[in-house]
Amino acid sequence: MSKKQIDEAELDINFVERMRHTLSHVMAAAVKELYPDAKFGIGPAIDNGFYYDIDFGDAKISDTDLPRIEKKMRGIIQRKFEMVRSEKTREEALNWAISDGQTLKKELVEELPASETISFYTMTTKDGKEVFTDLCKGPHVENSDEIGPFKLIRVAGAYWRGDEKREMLTRLYGVAFESEDELDAFLKRQEEAKARDHRKLGKELDLFTFSDLVGAGLPLFTPRGTVLRDVMANYSLSLRARAGFSRVWTPHITKVDLYKASGHYAKFGDELFMVHSQVNGEEFAMKPMNCPHHAQIFASKPRTYKEMPVRYMEATTDYRDEKTGELGGLSRVRSLTQDDSHVFCRKDQIKGEIQQLVSIIRELYETVGMSKLRARLSYRSDEDKYLGDPKLWEMAQGQIKEAAIENGLDFFEAEGEAAFYGPKIDFMAEDAIGREHQVATVQLDFVQPDRFGLEFTNEKGEKEQPVMIHHATLGSIERFLSVFIEHTAGWFPFWAAPEQVRILTVNDQVADYVSEISEVLSGVVLDKPLKYNELRFTIDDSADSLGKKIRRATEMKIPVALIVGPKDAASKEVSVRIHDEKAEGGSREEKVKLEKLSNYLQNL
Amino acid sequence: MSKKQIDEAELDINFVERMRHTLSHVMAAAVKELYPDAKFGIGPAIDNGFYYDIDFGDAKISDTDLPRIEKKMRGIIQRKFEMVRSEKTREEALNWAISDGQTLKKELVEELPASETISFYTMTTKDGKEVFTDLCKGPHVENSDEIGPFKLIRVAGAYWRGDEKREMLTRLYGVAFESEDELDAFLKRQEEAKARDHRKLGKELDLFTFSDLVGAGLPLFTPRGTVLRDVMANYSLSLRARAGFSRVWTPHITKVDLYKASGHYAKFGDELFMVHSQVNGEEFAMKPMNCPHHAQIFASKPRTYKEMPVRYMEATTDYRDEKTGELGGLSRVRSLTQDDSHVFCRKDQIKGEIQQLVSIIRELYETVGMSKLRARLSYRSDEDKYLGDPKLWEMAQGQIKEAAIENGLDFFEAEGEAAFYGPKIDFMAEDAIGREHQVATVQLDFVQPDRFGLEFTNEKGEKEQPVMIHHATLGSIERFLSVFIEHTAGWFPFWAAPEQVRILTVNDQVADYVSEISEVLSGVVLDKPLKYNELRFTIDDSADSLGKKIRRATEMKIPVALIVGPKDAASKEVSVRIHDEKAEGGSREEKVKLEKLSNYLQNL
Repeated sequence: MSKKQIDEAELDINFVERMRHTLSHVMAAAVKELYPDAKFGIGPAIDNGFYYDIDFGDAKISDTDLPRIEKKMRGIIQRKFEMVRSEKTREEALNWAISDGQTLKKELVEELPASETISFYTMTTKDGKEVFTDLCKGPHVENSDEIGPFKLIRVAGAYWRGDEKREMLTRLYGVAFESEDELDAFLKRQEEAKARDHRKLGKELDLFTFSDLVGAGLPLFTPRGTVLRDVMANYSLSLRARAGFSRVWTPHITKVDLYKASGHYAKFGDELFMVHSQVNGEEFAMKPMNCPHHAQIFASKPRTYKEMPVRYMEATTDYRDEKTGELGGLSRVRSLTQDDSHVFCRKDQIKGEIQQLVSIIRELYETVGMSKLRARLSYRSDEDKYLGDPKLWEMAQGQIKEAAIENGLDFFEAEGEAAFYGPKIDFMAEDAIGREHQVATVQLDFVQPDRFGLEFTNEKGEKEQPVMIHHATLGSIERFLSVFIEHTAGWFPFWAAPEQVRILTVNDQVADYVSEISEVLSGVVLDKPLKYNELRFTIDDSADSLGKKIRRATEMKIPVALIVGPKDAASKEVSVRIHDEKAEGGSREEKVKLEKLSNYLQNL
Repeated sequence: MSKKQIDEAELDINFVERMRHTLSHVMAAAVKELYPDAKFGIGPAIDNGFYYDIDFGDAKISDTDLPRIEKKMRGIIQRKFEMVRSEKTREEALNWAISDGQTLKKELVEELPASETISFYTMTTKDGKEVFTDLCKGPHVENSDEIGPFKLIRVAGAYWRGDEKREMLTRLYGVAFESEDELDAFLKRQEEAKARDHRKLGKELDLFTFSDLVGAGLPLFTPRGTVLRDVMANYSLSLRARAGFSRVWTPHITKVDLYKASGHYAKFGDELFMVHSQVNGEEFAMKPMNCPHHAQIFASKPRTYKEMPVRYMEATTDYRDEKTGELGGLSRVRSLTQDDSHVFCRKDQIKGEIQQLVSIIRELYETVGMSKLRARLSYRSDEDKYLGDPKLWEMAQGQIKEAAIENGLDFFEAEGEAAFYGPKIDFMAEDAIGREHQVATVQLDFVQPDRFGLEFTNEKGEKEQPVMIHHATLGSIERFLSVFIEHTAGWFPFWAAPEQVRILTVNDQVADYVSEISEVLSGVVLDKPLKYNELRFTIDDSADSLGKKIRRATEMKIPVALIVGPKDAASKEVSVRIHDEKAEGGSREEKVKLEKLSNYLQNL
């Protein structure tokens, strides 16, 4: 994009945001007319729309109330109004809030300094009538003519100020766009997303389950879900094994001393799951990350420049104490299995290592059909919160950018977005219905090597400190699966499907031939993208009709069904029915000779 | 063994035990002569020998004091004595302890009922002189002539009454046998065991490490050790996959509700590692076993007779709160990775499932060179601590025994040794230096299916309760590795070795040829006993002498070294140097053509 295009794009974003913000006022005005006692909290613009947190008192609000509120909003917009900004002193603002019974707004005003001038926006009709006034920083669109198409979509609960100890308010969500087309596209995508909801598919496809006895955010993976986990984790690890990474293994608990030494305890100590020994009172913590453990393995023996970079990887489960209210399916869990890795390298090896990791990330996301990747290069700013030598930062940021350019990444740079311990690259991938998900990350770390006193002997016989690079390709396997299930709508690629092939018998006269086919299938081992991937197949030789069997296989989203009848047995063929989104009815069928079946499946 | 032989064997055991017990008195007598203020705790016979826990007051006792005590013991035996039993009332016994300053003995007497008659043994010489008197139940050998060869071996600390809150006593260990040969063999085995100590080899071969920051009993596995873990775990899982087991995945923490439901909480609740959420105060526990988790997966959907048996397996880490004092290397750890599995089956499927598991166990231990297995079949007794229908027990015990007989197992039966929830089979394997280790186990469980209300629909459409079978083949992978490392002395079988092949260059003129060899080795994939086992090799092309390179490879116990010089390059050969215990110098060498190398290694 040219400079000019960027400016225009920014203006556009600002316009849409302002319009969404104005809509939150319109929604509040509509609520006020319908529920005069409603008390208003805050109502910002957000991605795709807006919301308002409202105390409805005793009134119970649900999704069924939304059409009425939406209708009232449209009525208000038809009245035509301008957004008029005004200012009040803090005292005037307080009086306004008190006289209107707006206790939540009063609290907001009270937190402002006494000298502050406070801005308000009033929706004012041509004839000077005030429709609705709200305490607000703005900005807004100028008038109601600028308001685009919108829709209210959802009612949810939200604690006032996000504090679990405060009152629960009702949050009304709306979406809004500049054009009807955009709104329609968004709503359609929402419908699609609903049909693909991984929690729903997880149950239907028997991938994972939750148990009240085990607890929220702690999924149990069934055999099918475990295949998916293992296939994906093994694929991810295999890419890194090829790049010289070795697997290590570390326990899930540790003395907190490790996090005190690493510096994590001071920052995140109160977010740790603490583990208590009843036997002798010792205190441990569950690991929320693996870097300090891997640093201990690096430190377990003397190192020389010859063995650098040292590259460790592990697929291991970390535990993070997420709030119960924020847990949902696999998107946010307390048990996160990370395909985590750490490179310990010399300063002049940073670029090479990053390039290697970038190409692994691209290969993996290309393979799972999410090849549209964007990368954010996060640098330090001039703030003094960043630790480590500024020259090292500069040099490393330079290496990161070069790596991004040389790899032809679609990237943008974000100053001031680095972690305090080093610059990083975050990758965003687009899924099949256009949603962008944060996926892999590559982070440099200048701080942990120092805190743990890591060192290696360089060519001159001197001790030198390595740089650490944190990387996960899938990230949390659970979260990745939540994205992958929705991205594929449960139609996993052939190589990854928990059940890849199902033999469906036409009648009971083909038992011998089915044995013959089974023998062939037992010998099939796929070798791309994951090597040594033994074919997973089952047989449905029940007495049910073929139609019912096909329906069942389709419901379970088995990518390949082999339909076998007496004629097939006679001609030593099978009818291969393959899932194909583009084909009519979602599948295509072809006859394959038994002798060619193995080869055929290997090349799917 | 005939009935008569068994009686004689029992007598023998009793004799050795009695003799060892007498030796603990002799040791106490010697200590008393050398350290008149010593206070004696208890001194029993144990496997291979005896010990005595003694309060030496301010005297510091170490291994260097043992020869002096041992010499004194031999002097006492030379004086010739009989073991004379006598009885005292509780009051007399108390007076004896008080007058002799034996405060620990006093405590023991005080715990006995007032009416109890208490036996003493006095070592008495022919002329009636009393050498040493001790409070003791016996039995002992009759006189000093019956005492066989012995040796004091070790000083250790031990809490009085095994209670960490009581005083720390000094435990003197001795070993004793009926013949010098047996003693020599034992001491030789001890030496061998010392050389094979897995803690020592673990460090030398860079297999695992401990970190004070992480904590005791929490090993970190380096790349080499992780290969070993993975190879063994995958092999174990592959044997069960062949037998129809599916992998599942369960989190490492759970609400304690799960253990309350399973019944474990009431029995073992105070041995759990408790996990505390600082965010919302929720209480979890680290899982010390996986059965309740697996039961939740079984319960996650309705089951019918058609899918039974349902077989789950997982290689997952359990956490047990072992006392710090009992932790040692990998033998006893807090993080135990179990190759755990559970069968949910119908009552008439028990025998078939057990047979399958027995044959898996035999195959695995045969493969690792520990084919000498003994099995203990543990049954219920008439006590009423056993839960579940006695008829079901009887039927299941019958099936277990039939399975053992039909599999030709070397087994013995132990009434009253079953778990409260079902009968079981425990396997003991003998290692290369004749030590027996408890390894795999197969346990029936009639209780958990009931507590979790597990059920399936049988052929008649009725709900029926399945039986659960717990099984681990390796058991804890950490503990298995401690045995395996000592069993092999670190010379792992070729297929399991972390580094299987090392190329050693004779000089720097063979770089191209080494590349050629590397390419061949990169394509080598072993397929037995573990399939898809890619060859792990490295290259030592340093400037060091070949002798030094060979020494280094031998120190790291690399089973195969490929020695490559210019002549080999010219003739497209390599000198294969293979570790071979039976060969002179511990290795044999042969020339192999490069074109045959892949095949050669595949068949090692």
